[in-house]
Amino acid sequence: MSAVLVFDVNETLLDLGALDPLFIDLFDDAALRPQWFATMLQLSFVGGLTGQYVDFSTAQRAALRMTAQRAGKDVSASAVETVVDAMRRLPPHPEVPRALARLQNEGLRLTALTNSVLDVARAQLVNAGLAERFEEIFSADEVRALKPAPAPYRMVAERCGVDVGDLCLIAAHPWDVSGAMAIGARSAFVARSGVVPSPLGPQPAVIGTDLTAVADALLAPSVDGRQ
Amino acid sequence: MSAVLVFDVNETLLDLGALDPLFIDLFDDAALRPQWFATMLQLSFVGGLTGQYVDFSTAQRAALRMTAQRAGKDVSASAVETVVDAMRRLPPHPEVPRALARLQNEGLRLTALTNSVLDVARAQLVNAGLAERFEEIFSADEVRALKPAPAPYRMVAERCGVDVGDLCLIAAHPWDVSGAMAIGARSAFVARSGVVPSPLGPQPAVIGTDLTAVADALLAPSVDGRQ
Repeated sequence: MSAVLVFDVNETLLDLGALDPLFIDLFDDAALRPQWFATMLQLSFVGGLTGQYVDFSTAQRAALRMTAQRAGKDVSASAVETVVDAMRRLPPHPEVPRALARLQNEGLRLTALTNSVLDVARAQLVNAGLAERFEEIFSADEVRALKPAPAPYRMVAERCGVDVGDLCLIAAHPWDVSGAMAIGARSAFVARSGVVPSPLGPQPAVIGTDLTAVADALLAPSVDGRQ
Repeated sequence: MSAVLVFDVNETLLDLGALDPLFIDLFDDAALRPQWFATMLQLSFVGGLTGQYVDFSTAQRAALRMTAQRAGKDVSASAVETVVDAMRRLPPHPEVPRALARLQNEGLRLTALTNSVLDVARAQLVNAGLAERFEEIFSADEVRALKPAPAPYRMVAERCGVDVGDLCLIAAHPWDVSGAMAIGARSAFVARSGVVPSPLGPQPAVIGTDLTAVADALLAPSVDGRQ
């Protein structure tokens, strides 16, 4: 068992599907919500690859304008802020509160590491009723490099006083577990509906269909050498 | 006018829509084709961000398996090779041959720079009847870093004997023009149906709905200080 569990937040713990009614209100089309998130990720990744850091809130705003433009829709400045603000109040996926409580009650060290900027990250976990589960909430923005670049994972290891190899990154995004494993961390993949891990490179030690299944596997004696 | 025009290949010059019948044959769903391309790009970008270089053909194979798995479809090894092989024989978008010929006839230096590996890149442009338009065909794979990282654009400038600021990168992908502009190159954006430039950072000097419109603008006396 790894010394520190590191949870991704958006989509892993919190349900972005809660934004769908907002996208219907604004654009008459809930399908634009995953398109927006994918565009936002791409802008973030391009910022990292080109050395032009883009924080996650800025990427969200820009991606919303691009998504609307592609769909031939107008988007007002206030609509953009409405969406970005709604990111602070996402509900947890249904099984998440109990699964996190169980891992915490087993005495494990739980942290959160998200690409959301720090004040958003904290608001997200407070509003979802999850903040008390975590020893510390980290934002990749603190090192001005978003996951899956190495720096955010290394920051968590350093501030938790452990080696990177003692982290287990838990995420519902293939790129996040790939990033953690690329520098020697372990990982667990939450294979929520419609997501699959990358077949390239090292594979997650655990794959579960939701956080209950992942917690079961993390707590099983056979996984990861836990006694 | 920039000293050297640098054309992206996939989607900018060549029409990936030609793969749709193949995706219908294999998966009964042409909508998986753009999903596959987006997944392939994400794997490529993650490779760059994590320092685990992935060449474009490897990314294509992995992305096809992920796309099929997400859709609950089987994909055989031979089906994967069929798709990757079909990338060598994409047709040009209809206006492309004439637009390139016109730019070449005006005496401009035309090059191609693609994330495709070099033998695929050459086959693509030969099979599309476009190879003769280019002074040189470059692959980002030659520097083991895919666009939009700086290295591929710098390679083109160096091998063409010009400064990066003398390049004009022409692409239908927002991330490609962003990458070129991040290191001081100029750019022109081909705003094909459904694509829009990023609102972040410097903006393309030219935006046209197809390569004819872009060529018109590039050849206009008012653009980019051309006399």
